[in-house]
Amino acid sequence: MPSKSKTVQLSHGGGGKEMDQLIKSVFFNAFDNPILSAEEDAAKLNLSGPVAFTTDSFTVSPLFFAGGDIGKLAIAGTVNDLAMMAAEPQYLSCSFIIEEGFAINDLKTIVNSMAKELHKSGARIVCGDTKVVPKGCADGVFINTTGVGRILNPNVSVKNIQPGDAIIVSRDVGRHGATILMSREGLSLESDLSSDCATLWPIVEQLVATSTPIHAMRDATRGGLSAVLNEWSKASNVGIDVDEDAIPVADEVKGLCELFGFEPYDLANEGTFILAVPKAAAAGAVEIMKRYGNCEHAAIIGHVTEAHAGKVVLTTPWGSHRYLDLPQGELLPRIC
Amino acid sequence: MPSKSKTVQLSHGGGGKEMDQLIKSVFFNAFDNPILSAEEDAAKLNLSGPVAFTTDSFTVSPLFFAGGDIGKLAIAGTVNDLAMMAAEPQYLSCSFIIEEGFAINDLKTIVNSMAKELHKSGARIVCGDTKVVPKGCADGVFINTTGVGRILNPNVSVKNIQPGDAIIVSRDVGRHGATILMSREGLSLESDLSSDCATLWPIVEQLVATSTPIHAMRDATRGGLSAVLNEWSKASNVGIDVDEDAIPVADEVKGLCELFGFEPYDLANEGTFILAVPKAAAAGAVEIMKRYGNCEHAAIIGHVTEAHAGKVVLTTPWGSHRYLDLPQGELLPRIC
Repeated sequence: MPSKSKTVQLSHGGGGKEMDQLIKSVFFNAFDNPILSAEEDAAKLNLSGPVAFTTDSFTVSPLFFAGGDIGKLAIAGTVNDLAMMAAEPQYLSCSFIIEEGFAINDLKTIVNSMAKELHKSGARIVCGDTKVVPKGCADGVFINTTGVGRILNPNVSVKNIQPGDAIIVSRDVGRHGATILMSREGLSLESDLSSDCATLWPIVEQLVATSTPIHAMRDATRGGLSAVLNEWSKASNVGIDVDEDAIPVADEVKGLCELFGFEPYDLANEGTFILAVPKAAAAGAVEIMKRYGNCEHAAIIGHVTEAHAGKVVLTTPWGSHRYLDLPQGELLPRIC
Repeated sequence: MPSKSKTVQLSHGGGGKEMDQLIKSVFFNAFDNPILSAEEDAAKLNLSGPVAFTTDSFTVSPLFFAGGDIGKLAIAGTVNDLAMMAAEPQYLSCSFIIEEGFAINDLKTIVNSMAKELHKSGARIVCGDTKVVPKGCADGVFINTTGVGRILNPNVSVKNIQPGDAIIVSRDVGRHGATILMSREGLSLESDLSSDCATLWPIVEQLVATSTPIHAMRDATRGGLSAVLNEWSKASNVGIDVDEDAIPVADEVKGLCELFGFEPYDLANEGTFILAVPKAAAAGAVEIMKRYGNCEHAAIIGHVTEAHAGKVVLTTPWGSHRYLDLPQGELLPRIC
């Protein structure tokens, strides 16, 4: 890049010479693979049988946070959405909306972070798009990733949760939301707290490979644990009982929640998932999960009932009960 | 929607109750189909054989313009990218980034425009995502659509253009770019000019069904006719000769180009495509195209040569020759 191009210019989005250069020097350099083509309008894929198809746009602020950045998040997020359908993450598209004046070096850092995260699942970026908007029309960079992948276990479904199932959480909850909150409040230097942002496919692949009878799986992103459990109880028309004492929450997350009036169960996660499996299979699933980094604190946190269908009931450490509701109100904007 | 929600609020992107309501009342209402699910993280598709996969983010400004809006554009753009691979547009994802304060009524207009455009190809939206960013962090609304579709003719490729091929353009060029330019300059009321924005699949389907031996196909979006022909000449390592007199350009587009110093061949189109077919098949292809609305002015504009490989040569109305180069510089930002 010539020195005049240390930042992204409107001409980089014009469809001409400058765009061609940016795409080749930044994107192709990092994402190179035999399917990705600078010349065709679309990638050619060979797919067969049932596949999962999912999309997510990432607008997180700040772009760089403890434990990750928007690039890592854009890959892990979509790969995880496929993984949660028991689908092998295979092919991703990526589309950038970049604000004029964005530093090319920051763009390269983000793109390299994406390339690194792709290696954790084996997924590949096979097509893309770049738009540049004038200064003030976007905030830094937004990334969309859309993924397709072969479904390995077609029975995994939000509608397949059954009374008697155990509810498992893969690790302590609320880290991503708390980390973003912390960095917005300028508290980053006072804490070791970092986002849980991670690719979950290796763990899911192992659960599938060991024929764990997974009924439902979901990463607890926006709306956190509360949103997943409420959606599940409604979609499968079951009650879910959760033992508050059993839900792992880091002390730093608890502290921030007390300070700012949030509920840790409502905070977003980006590498934490919830699993519903028959009770008999629960201990085995937890055993498998604990072998993986980030899942050392995997725990059974509750179970599914026929009673109070459509509702999630939390048993507090003092033995009292309360409904855990779908979060509402503003929560934290631009968490992902 | 209660009256306090006449505009999109940050809470509409939070993953809780408000988001659920927005998605159901606006998106599901318009896009309803058996595959689209509010409950799963991904759509389940049955695909087999070679498929095309393509992505585009749309940031056009203004959002509403003569001949279309960002919604129509977001569907036609991705459907056309599939069509240009001779792929039947089947499944689309759509992802919205919405600025806080955006009018719900405008959002509904855009979404209804998407639904209407989907009917022109039979493609369906099967998964989606909604993000809301604080006021000032985006400009109105950005939409990503990503599509998959079955490839009907695997031979269509930017690398398959051969000396002797005829180059056909489906209609007059530069309309979309000129329309956006016009509306930015506040000239809209003085002209009947409108964007060419349109779904091209019905025409392409007919070309495929009649076994037209298509070598390459491309919609002339960003960078216009100039970008397509230059990319083709390089990708297939051939020369392309174009007769300037044969390229249809509307008088209004010519006038605007003279006024603002643009070249009509560099301006974006959103419903205009270029075709390379063997010379013997060219008249038949043009005949088929002319049967369709918007293609009445389809014309053979040039041919492919072995000479000057990698270059596009324009013969002017005065018989002189000049290179038609890949556009460079700022052009028009936020054209699509």
